[in-house]
Amino acid sequence: MAEEQLDYGTFEATLEKSRKLEADLQVHPENYKVLTGDRPTGRLHIGHLFGSLQNRVRLHKLGVPTFIVIADYQVLTDRDTFDNISENIRQLTIDYIAAGIDVTDGKTFIFPHSHVPELNQLLLPFLTLVTNAELDRNPTVKEEIAASGQKRINAGMYTYPVHQAADILFCKGSVVPVGKDQLPHLELTRTIARRFNDRFAGKRPVFPEPQPLLSEAPIILGLDGSQKMSKSRNNAIMLSADEDETARLIKKAKTDSERHITYDPEHRPEVSNLLLLISLASGRKPEQIAEEIGDGGSGQLKKLLTDSLNEYLRPLRTKRKELEQNIDYVRDVLRGGVAAAREEAIKTLEEVRTVMNMTI
Amino acid sequence: MAEEQLDYGTFEATLEKSRKLEADLQVHPENYKVLTGDRPTGRLHIGHLFGSLQNRVRLHKLGVPTFIVIADYQVLTDRDTFDNISENIRQLTIDYIAAGIDVTDGKTFIFPHSHVPELNQLLLPFLTLVTNAELDRNPTVKEEIAASGQKRINAGMYTYPVHQAADILFCKGSVVPVGKDQLPHLELTRTIARRFNDRFAGKRPVFPEPQPLLSEAPIILGLDGSQKMSKSRNNAIMLSADEDETARLIKKAKTDSERHITYDPEHRPEVSNLLLLISLASGRKPEQIAEEIGDGGSGQLKKLLTDSLNEYLRPLRTKRKELEQNIDYVRDVLRGGVAAAREEAIKTLEEVRTVMNMTI
Repeated sequence: MAEEQLDYGTFEATLEKSRKLEADLQVHPENYKVLTGDRPTGRLHIGHLFGSLQNRVRLHKLGVPTFIVIADYQVLTDRDTFDNISENIRQLTIDYIAAGIDVTDGKTFIFPHSHVPELNQLLLPFLTLVTNAELDRNPTVKEEIAASGQKRINAGMYTYPVHQAADILFCKGSVVPVGKDQLPHLELTRTIARRFNDRFAGKRPVFPEPQPLLSEAPIILGLDGSQKMSKSRNNAIMLSADEDETARLIKKAKTDSERHITYDPEHRPEVSNLLLLISLASGRKPEQIAEEIGDGGSGQLKKLLTDSLNEYLRPLRTKRKELEQNIDYVRDVLRGGVAAAREEAIKTLEEVRTVMNMTI
Repeated sequence: MAEEQLDYGTFEATLEKSRKLEADLQVHPENYKVLTGDRPTGRLHIGHLFGSLQNRVRLHKLGVPTFIVIADYQVLTDRDTFDNISENIRQLTIDYIAAGIDVTDGKTFIFPHSHVPELNQLLLPFLTLVTNAELDRNPTVKEEIAASGQKRINAGMYTYPVHQAADILFCKGSVVPVGKDQLPHLELTRTIARRFNDRFAGKRPVFPEPQPLLSEAPIILGLDGSQKMSKSRNNAIMLSADEDETARLIKKAKTDSERHITYDPEHRPEVSNLLLLISLASGRKPEQIAEEIGDGGSGQLKKLLTDSLNEYLRPLRTKRKELEQNIDYVRDVLRGGVAAAREEAIKTLEEVRTVMNMTI
């Protein structure tokens, strides 16, 4: 085991590297492989769309080969229910495609990791490259354990950052779009890649050290204005909501007592969040939108948001409906994703076995 | 997570159950599936042969379907070298076949677990069924960590008893021949099987709770007489040693200063161990052998052991040599074992995915 400690570096340095990476992705998308994904805990909402999904669609449209892993085993690390995993996998896939992920381009694949045994097997060698002390120190896992309210940590929760390394490295993923809270996980993946290469691979490294692409997307608050938008907090507008439901939800959104509308995220978070959403849906600046509404108050603000958002989401929602009518197609997409992921994973695992002297 | 604690029960109760199991195996071998195996850390010696291997051959000859897992990933939990894993896998296979495992009977399979991805994937759901506290308490892992001299525990070492559950349950193994020190591991496997069934499978359990078959075979001391025979302690006679080497090793074996030979394991462990070996090789009682040697002293004792052991091992060693000349056949045996193991593992994993609602 190497003596080094995990080095999280400074956030500024990481941001700087991420910006350089972003610039190079524009020029040489073919040199990279993006690895991204979600846990199938439910449908996506507009916070996901503006926060991460649109960024994925953007990278994908640059022509970067993209694997989207649906981390179904991760649902079990801190949840008691597993009833809807299968349905959630399909709904997530529908959200991705409806949002603009084109799975017919031959280089974009969506798959649930439970269907790729060769990916999951990588957990075995990877576990031997990480000490318990290192897992104990992971700040994101600590927070998640606290948030989940688990009295006793299960070993799946404890080791899932190592499994995440398998999710990324199985296809030699080189770019991972992340938020700040995911950086410790990605640093662990980088460490595992490095240690694997050092220990087993000698001069011909098997794994790249994947780079974080930091999201500069805004954080979308929920309609209660107090916290991040989240389905479990009941403050979200789902992509799958219809236009009337969207209108109803926005009508109940929290604002404040001041009639004159201004964009002031620090002092008027609720009103500013709604302005931000109009901005994201219309491509106009939130300050300008605020000025136009002026004394129109929260009534006019909400009407404008309802209209902009429904208009903006209309093509996505139409596509979504079509896909919901055609679940066999969605299943085929997933099967195709699984086949492509396995092809990559089988090749990688073969290399891994060879350098570890485990050929028959 | 279930509230129950792991219940190791009393050793006597386990032994009693094991004896009943043994009796039923004689009558209904087809109702069971034996799961057994070794880590590929080197060739086997006569301590393995008399301690565990002959017992496996015996069960196998009763007609019990048998999977022998070569636990290659487990080499990495506490060892730094991985140079010889591939060679060790083949040598182990040669030892098994030479000792009497008939891999052509259509129900006996030898395979390295690193070649069965669907087996390894079972680690993922199983990890979520065990708490860190439970892993912390495993007495055998504690001892092994102490013995390995590792300052920092790697997560592969920490979680390997959970992986062992996958080694056993992938084919729904129902009987595991074990020594006393392995009982905590098997109890964890039984707990995982039970919890999996309770949590996910409802009324149609996926996994059996495998039963321990306790070995009543004697423990063979090394030729230094002080400790268990072990290659790393340089006190072993390898199955692959030739007759001259066997004679040389026995000549240097430790005895004691008393000329008259008696069988007294408590007070004369070295001499008694040599008598035991003659007994195992000749089928005669050690007390009787001692009486016959009498004042012949350790010289005669050693000569008798050399002759009996070489004679006893001759067919095994001849077979061994043939197999060493025919490594392609050995590879084919392993490939056949892998294919059979994967067939079982694929079926089991499919059931696991279905009850966990992870179908596409």
